[in-house]
Amino acid sequence: MNRLDKAFAPASIAVLGASDNAHKVGGRPLAFLKQYGYAGRVYPVNATRTIVQGLPAWPSLADLPEVPELVIVAVGGEAGLRLVEQCAAAGVAVAVVMASGYAESGAAGAELQARMVTACRASGMRLVGPNGQGLANFRNGAIANFSTIFHESPGGDGPLAIIGQSGAATQSVYALAHRRGIFARYVHATGNEADVTASELLLQVVADPEIRAVVLYLESIKDAGVLARAAAAARARRLPVITVKGGRTANGQRAAASHTGAMATEDRVVEAFFEHHGLIRAVDPFEAVSLAALFIGATPPRGSGLVAMSNSGASCVMMADTADEFGMPLVAVDGALAQRLDAVLPAFSQAANPIDLTGALLTDRQLFPGVLDALATASDLHLLLVSFPIAGMGYDVPGYAKALGSFAQATGVTVAVSACQDSVRAQFEQAGLVTYDREREALHALKTVARFSAKLRSAPLRPPAGEAATLSASADVLPALAGERTLDEAASLALLRSVGVAVVDFELCADEAQAVAAWRRLGGRVVVKGCSPDILHKTEHGLVALDLTSEAEVRAALDRHASTVRSLGGRYCGALVARMLKGGREMALGARVDPVFGPVVLLGDGGVYLEALEDFRLLVAPFSEAQALQAVSSLRIAPVLRGVRGEASADLDAFCRMAVRLGDALLRWQDRIASIDINPVKVFARGQGALALDAVVELADAGTVAGAGRAGAEP
Amino acid sequence: MNRLDKAFAPASIAVLGASDNAHKVGGRPLAFLKQYGYAGRVYPVNATRTIVQGLPAWPSLADLPEVPELVIVAVGGEAGLRLVEQCAAAGVAVAVVMASGYAESGAAGAELQARMVTACRASGMRLVGPNGQGLANFRNGAIANFSTIFHESPGGDGPLAIIGQSGAATQSVYALAHRRGIFARYVHATGNEADVTASELLLQVVADPEIRAVVLYLESIKDAGVLARAAAAARARRLPVITVKGGRTANGQRAAASHTGAMATEDRVVEAFFEHHGLIRAVDPFEAVSLAALFIGATPPRGSGLVAMSNSGASCVMMADTADEFGMPLVAVDGALAQRLDAVLPAFSQAANPIDLTGALLTDRQLFPGVLDALATASDLHLLLVSFPIAGMGYDVPGYAKALGSFAQATGVTVAVSACQDSVRAQFEQAGLVTYDREREALHALKTVARFSAKLRSAPLRPPAGEAATLSASADVLPALAGERTLDEAASLALLRSVGVAVVDFELCADEAQAVAAWRRLGGRVVVKGCSPDILHKTEHGLVALDLTSEAEVRAALDRHASTVRSLGGRYCGALVARMLKGGREMALGARVDPVFGPVVLLGDGGVYLEALEDFRLLVAPFSEAQALQAVSSLRIAPVLRGVRGEASADLDAFCRMAVRLGDALLRWQDRIASIDINPVKVFARGQGALALDAVVELADAGTVAGAGRAGAEP
Repeated sequence: MNRLDKAFAPASIAVLGASDNAHKVGGRPLAFLKQYGYAGRVYPVNATRTIVQGLPAWPSLADLPEVPELVIVAVGGEAGLRLVEQCAAAGVAVAVVMASGYAESGAAGAELQARMVTACRASGMRLVGPNGQGLANFRNGAIANFSTIFHESPGGDGPLAIIGQSGAATQSVYALAHRRGIFARYVHATGNEADVTASELLLQVVADPEIRAVVLYLESIKDAGVLARAAAAARARRLPVITVKGGRTANGQRAAASHTGAMATEDRVVEAFFEHHGLIRAVDPFEAVSLAALFIGATPPRGSGLVAMSNSGASCVMMADTADEFGMPLVAVDGALAQRLDAVLPAFSQAANPIDLTGALLTDRQLFPGVLDALATASDLHLLLVSFPIAGMGYDVPGYAKALGSFAQATGVTVAVSACQDSVRAQFEQAGLVTYDREREALHALKTVARFSAKLRSAPLRPPAGEAATLSASADVLPALAGERTLDEAASLALLRSVGVAVVDFELCADEAQAVAAWRRLGGRVVVKGCSPDILHKTEHGLVALDLTSEAEVRAALDRHASTVRSLGGRYCGALVARMLKGGREMALGARVDPVFGPVVLLGDGGVYLEALEDFRLLVAPFSEAQALQAVSSLRIAPVLRGVRGEASADLDAFCRMAVRLGDALLRWQDRIASIDINPVKVFARGQGALALDAVVELADAGTVAGAGRAGAEP
Repeated sequence: MNRLDKAFAPASIAVLGASDNAHKVGGRPLAFLKQYGYAGRVYPVNATRTIVQGLPAWPSLADLPEVPELVIVAVGGEAGLRLVEQCAAAGVAVAVVMASGYAESGAAGAELQARMVTACRASGMRLVGPNGQGLANFRNGAIANFSTIFHESPGGDGPLAIIGQSGAATQSVYALAHRRGIFARYVHATGNEADVTASELLLQVVADPEIRAVVLYLESIKDAGVLARAAAAARARRLPVITVKGGRTANGQRAAASHTGAMATEDRVVEAFFEHHGLIRAVDPFEAVSLAALFIGATPPRGSGLVAMSNSGASCVMMADTADEFGMPLVAVDGALAQRLDAVLPAFSQAANPIDLTGALLTDRQLFPGVLDALATASDLHLLLVSFPIAGMGYDVPGYAKALGSFAQATGVTVAVSACQDSVRAQFEQAGLVTYDREREALHALKTVARFSAKLRSAPLRPPAGEAATLSASADVLPALAGERTLDEAASLALLRSVGVAVVDFELCADEAQAVAAWRRLGGRVVVKGCSPDILHKTEHGLVALDLTSEAEVRAALDRHASTVRSLGGRYCGALVARMLKGGREMALGARVDPVFGPVVLLGDGGVYLEALEDFRLLVAPFSEAQALQAVSSLRIAPVLRGVRGEASADLDAFCRMAVRLGDALLRWQDRIASIDINPVKVFARGQGALALDAVVELADAGTVAGAGRAGAEP
């Protein structure tokens, strides 16, 4: 059994460095344990006092009547390390180390922290922190956390879980949720993560069936495999995990490095990983809580059909704008639904979506319930936003709130309310509805819960294709190449061909005679590239001759290339002769083994402009052809690929098949291959396929072993 | 004098349809006039009562002791029309018509509204509404407005002005500003705008020197010329006009059509117009108020250098992310500034930007003022965001607020504060600082005020180039072409050449002999296009022959084109022979006369993919080459245009010169030319120029006269 489990319901808690001052780090947890009704045994440890905050205190850990299951270490520096070592030796299950001054503060602190970890590893004790606010469980009052916010804004048990690598970030989330009346059962901050990570805590929290939303703040992801497992467990029970990732940009990563020592991770890879595992991304704590509120307070949507309504025509206009901007489909108001709405709306308001309730709401008591009755018959309605930008005197807000609450209950429609007046919002909240002070925020939340539901309904994650035969056969290609840093073009193409990637028809020719024979076999129209293991960029050095149509041209090219290579001081090793292909669009595929997330595949608009245009998507392997197609369809170039002005559409199926095989291959080879670039991939008209024209395989450093925590390395 | 001026300080106000019930449309203004201390003469008009809300009432307009300057018409339908006619005949200056049931409700209402306008035009009376909440001036209490919000959230005089085509939208803005303690002097809602427009009211409001920010809600822009004048007046006095434009998308425009009868305007043209005239765009009332708060409450920035600081490391990370995302430059912390900061920050926090104040803030009273003292010496600091995601017990928030308020005063730095706890925000507000509950919102506001200041510092709007000679000479080209709908390629290119646009060297040849001579003169390598006034799409009909290098090829092309044209039943009128150009990038320029905004120029990545890629920018003419270059530099293709992998950069100066001339030409010709498309423009390497290869000029409908209100039609 993982001793970390003890952290959730420890039978006893000791505080080393316990303070009589409830506002000091060593005093606050003691106060919280009392305030929040912890029923286990509490042991303040203080060398100089016999009573601390009204409790009998002990001079040292060794003096306690039992080995506590959880120990809070509120002492820093060398002294903190010694206490951790004592805890580990004594058989404590979990130590929460709150003090700072360890890895985040420089080399000396890092050394102390490393020694803490050594002590833990030896004994099996788990360590939370150091430099962390610790763990809080409001279900049983086990608050091993020194956050001031539990004092400022007293909490209680609730359906939210908050986990973060930063204490302040978890406090922000707590405070913002508290303002909405949402309480958190768990508030965990891991700090330096010398041992226990946020992902591990997430894995435990998602197992609690009463948690209905998790907000996670991360600056670095050290154990993507654990995070992926936790995400899978959350998905299995339809639990949303809303993640704020600090360090999205260059400056953010620089700041994160000095804050939690986070390693920079390319944010597009993070994005691909989150998408792959169904983690919901929020841009900041505010947005995270805004989303969590709807996840917790409303019925999960069964579709994405939206109806918006307001007593303000301007709100109707702006909600329609925002729905379009967010890509949310407005339910069509026609047929029977239109008739029903027309029957209740005033004559001067036409039934439409958004529904303009108009000022008639002030005089017609039947209007609002009548509209809801009509909507109750709309089978394609899944999301409802009701906006009262202005209400108050003259408006029957309590009546609207009651009617809307009943509607939500009876229909299972996901309902949100928007109102800028606090007094109006309060009445809807009392009716059990989730409210926002901004239509845009409400629509964003509705869109996000609908997307999450759709994701849960969509196909489960695909295991790598079972093309075992192809893979194992081709795997033999690799050992022969040990010692090289990259494979040359011919070897790279051959390797790709061995896993079922369609490559251009080519031959590697040692001399002119072979080249001429190849030219003839390949149809008399070829590309000739001069090869040298010493020259990477053929085009830049004039080693690519295009569209050669005669024997003489082929011979001349080989002759020219050989002397070019020699003049550059390289070893000339023959010519690659490939069929010359006309037409098609140049795209690109790339795959690399991310040190954290494992194999990631790039699908992009290609050629030499790949980097300049930045029109690409990343997918975490393995993925399906459908997922690849979805990614390619979201490229900016997609409308062109679908065919413009009578041009044929591109064979994206072939391109996506190639992408899937590339991802599967790298999953298989991730310990030996660092990256594979195919640029360009020529994508021909639909039905005509796609071919790799050029490729470079970069081999993994012999010294680099795939990280144990890496997502792709998981079984 | 415009009688509308009377609306701002009317000496007398009559209410036609005055109600004794202060919560009815006809009663609310009377109550507000009393409540907000209007000092003029007030005349309730009610046929059946002698006292209304404590004031003596008159049976009819004719019975009043004077002709009131402003009349509120709270009666609808035919009766309302009759009252408006009476007012007009009597010499009333301004009528505010609140009732609905006019143009927004169908043909019968539109007819009534048209007759109201006729009565106004005949007498010079100005009409606000109908279907509008009316005008409110809190400076003098002249509240000719029936909004319930002035009752719910009592207002007072303040530095904000709110103008909108929707009453509810103005109320939302009012309520959101009120929540921040910001009062509005003006709250004007124009409804159907049968006569007085929001732009006209804006023009008046910007003349009030005590107004410090305007929020404008528009669904349609009928008088872009007036709006442009108002924007210019606002810019001249550095007054920000924050505009929310409803109807940005297809569904939004549909909703706006049924709300205020707004005509759809392509949103990218609106965007270009706003950018041109320095109108600040906000996405909704919430954002508008968020921006207005900083414009009103903080010093205008003198630059864009940002420092962010927080007691939360996570906030530092997220603020750095957001600053990068928003393109806000973080002030470098090095040299003397770094030394000063290091001297006050705790040893474990490295001086950087964002500045991590750390938990040391709790114990070190000198830390916060010390950091501010250090920052006061940073000359490149213009924007400061201080974020306390968590504060309260143990934090000296009043002290921070006082120090920060003094810092803002002393340095002139634009300061914003972010805190999620209301209690913390309140203390900073008390110190005169602008606060947000979200760092992201604060940064967005800081970025917007900095952008606005930069815009004010930048070059003023450019008048059209004084190339009068060229323009007047070429203007003679046009009359000869009357009767045609479009000019053919040769005529279009000739017209462009006449205004200094570089076009490909070409000749229009009647027969093979001329074509061969042209082929020879043009260097022996040409494109031949078969011309017919009846066939628009040459390429699709095989009428374009590329890269002809021999006399025989030229003759064969003419022969083939002639028979193709005949087989399509068209008139063959010779060949356009043009120099064949290799290399260069295909881009596109387009110009059209927008019915509302006047001449607008498109600069885009081109060729047949223009529409599919949607990689273009629009500029309102006239604009400078520098503005064009800025627009082109923001295209997605821009990195490619700057040169990729050793390719030469494109001659964007030549392209932008061409764009400026195109805009100037259309400004001159806007009554006779509807649009000019140049696609492709071949842009060669820097220094090699750009050439129009193909063009189509579309002439204006003879019946279409440029709208008087159109922006481009302004003198």
